[in-house]
Amino acid sequence: MGQAKIIILGATGSIGMSACACIRRFPDRFRVAAMSANNNIDKLAALVKEFRPAAVCFGASEKAAALKGIMPKEVRVFTGVKGLEELVEQADFDILCNALVGAVGLRPTVAALKRNKRVALANKESLVIGGDYITSLLHQKKGELVPVDSEHSAILQCLAGSERDGVESVILTASGGPFREQPLDTFKDITPKDALNHPTWNMGKKITIDAATLVNKGFELIEAHHLFAMPYEKLRVVIHPQSVVHSMVEFHDGAIIAQMGVPDMELPIQLALSYPERLPLAGKRLDLAKLRALTFFEPDFTRFPCLKLCIDAGKTGGTMPAALNAANEVAVQAFLDNKIGFNRIAELIQGACDDHKPVPVDGVETVEKVDRETREKTRARIRE
Amino acid sequence: MGQAKIIILGATGSIGMSACACIRRFPDRFRVAAMSANNNIDKLAALVKEFRPAAVCFGASEKAAALKGIMPKEVRVFTGVKGLEELVEQADFDILCNALVGAVGLRPTVAALKRNKRVALANKESLVIGGDYITSLLHQKKGELVPVDSEHSAILQCLAGSERDGVESVILTASGGPFREQPLDTFKDITPKDALNHPTWNMGKKITIDAATLVNKGFELIEAHHLFAMPYEKLRVVIHPQSVVHSMVEFHDGAIIAQMGVPDMELPIQLALSYPERLPLAGKRLDLAKLRALTFFEPDFTRFPCLKLCIDAGKTGGTMPAALNAANEVAVQAFLDNKIGFNRIAELIQGACDDHKPVPVDGVETVEKVDRETREKTRARIRE
Repeated sequence: MGQAKIIILGATGSIGMSACACIRRFPDRFRVAAMSANNNIDKLAALVKEFRPAAVCFGASEKAAALKGIMPKEVRVFTGVKGLEELVEQADFDILCNALVGAVGLRPTVAALKRNKRVALANKESLVIGGDYITSLLHQKKGELVPVDSEHSAILQCLAGSERDGVESVILTASGGPFREQPLDTFKDITPKDALNHPTWNMGKKITIDAATLVNKGFELIEAHHLFAMPYEKLRVVIHPQSVVHSMVEFHDGAIIAQMGVPDMELPIQLALSYPERLPLAGKRLDLAKLRALTFFEPDFTRFPCLKLCIDAGKTGGTMPAALNAANEVAVQAFLDNKIGFNRIAELIQGACDDHKPVPVDGVETVEKVDRETREKTRARIRE
Repeated sequence: MGQAKIIILGATGSIGMSACACIRRFPDRFRVAAMSANNNIDKLAALVKEFRPAAVCFGASEKAAALKGIMPKEVRVFTGVKGLEELVEQADFDILCNALVGAVGLRPTVAALKRNKRVALANKESLVIGGDYITSLLHQKKGELVPVDSEHSAILQCLAGSERDGVESVILTASGGPFREQPLDTFKDITPKDALNHPTWNMGKKITIDAATLVNKGFELIEAHHLFAMPYEKLRVVIHPQSVVHSMVEFHDGAIIAQMGVPDMELPIQLALSYPERLPLAGKRLDLAKLRALTFFEPDFTRFPCLKLCIDAGKTGGTMPAALNAANEVAVQAFLDNKIGFNRIAELIQGACDDHKPVPVDGVETVEKVDRETREKTRARIRE
């Protein structure tokens, strides 16, 4: 088995660092072809020193000159959002590990699939906003998507060795976030600090807020729809606060296959790189007898209106999820900047979806136009 | 896909009736080649009328004349324990569904494997007492064993599409039986009626007592050892009172794949007949949100000494599990007949194991000799 050359986009984030750790564990199997960071020069420089990639991309273009100064001469330096796509178009690689946050992740995914490569996909937005287009690329070309999300990785593992047409439903688990039991009338007072305090998963800021609104779970339903060609009618969500059952597949004989483990991203990241092979991973193990109880609840759509909005947008299809995502990205940033309250995230998403007239997703440009326009409208709504 | 011809041994018992129900659901896929019953003439006659097998076997030889009188002329009638083996040796069939209870199940399993047939195995004792010999038959011939036990069926499903050498452990779940929380000092007063009141599974008397002593779980560990070529060090038991997680496999990256469902034998029986295909099965579905909580506990070896005795006998190997099984069969019958108390089951098993000098299991005769001698000794102990 040769050494797979890997691009890590978002290398300095939580997922990116786990991907680095996996490559560190298996130097004979993987090496870093290229990596990107958005803002953290020192962390990127340290990774470059360790992994010796042939190219890097740095997001914050105002710091790019400083970065070039400290990079070894043989390292090609790309910059900005455009640089991410160029890097994927030009680098010599086998697997793109896409751990970018937000709509910016779409173009690199598309570029990798056009080059018939594997994408280890942690960037939810690629499928949420570009799902139909990516599905058509997967059919036309020889690339493949392997999910990095713990939920979709679990589903992939549960489906192993089974016929897809025997699937009765796919059940995504959700921790329910930090506000699962908080009184509804206090939701308006939720601060960014409250929302960033996720009970089971340690993640970046944006995705932690999405977990608190359940937008994250809604996105995962849309992703599951595209990844596994599942109609929305077969997709379900169950609240499972311990985040130990990562997701389940129910077959047409009533058997449910579940994947469980400690809440840790190392496993799904490693599996996405080595799939279908399962490499060993030392460390924490799930001890059910120590945990004692796993609990399950129906999701509360009143408490978490965003979940329903996401499902509706997914069912509507076309560019509707792209509009929803754009409104959400702007709203979450405004919430993190203390410009709006927690409740307004759902209101802004609802407003954007009500306004949007969806069209088919025939390419990246269509999606980006919707993305741009919806961001502008949402920003205007916030300023009002 | 042709119609598979099935022998059901133990057709009038709980597993046998479920096998009949499965064949009834898929008349194009399965038909009954032959069936046996131990004692219930009327039930067997009704099944023969419905399924039109070419042969039957009836256990209670004193009633055999009465049975012959009411059977259609074209049905061959075998009788007694010897008849079970002859039937499997002579019938035209594809799958033996062996739902016999006790050591009597070994010879039919061996006869079917010698004829290169599939055995849908519900008879635990075949593997418990004859494991090494059956394993050698599976290597020499082209027959196959597909488990019917919900636990082993679950393990088979969890292993689908995975490499065996990536398995770190196999975790069998156990309900813990009706006495999981009963004060230990009252165990001596347990009556057959108390022990037959199993919290989650509806089964025959013998196996229900084995579930109460956890002998059943110990046997399942020995079965799993043989079925999946797993060393005892990789086999674990976790108490799970809801009996909803039927068993689990933990891989070397920490991922646990679990199979869940309502506690109902229809699914594993159907899967054993259609394996590796998964046929649809309407009816009850597991609703985790309705169930709310799944709980897990370490097994209590003080409370259930039989579990440890079984594991030790399995590790010792050779004819030791056959001796344990013989003592257990005699002890359980004596308990059901109100001749001994509940605690004495473990004592009699312990005594039999202490006495026995194990030899390799090189054939059915070796096992049967140990079985016979241990029964005699155990009966003598009870009479003392």
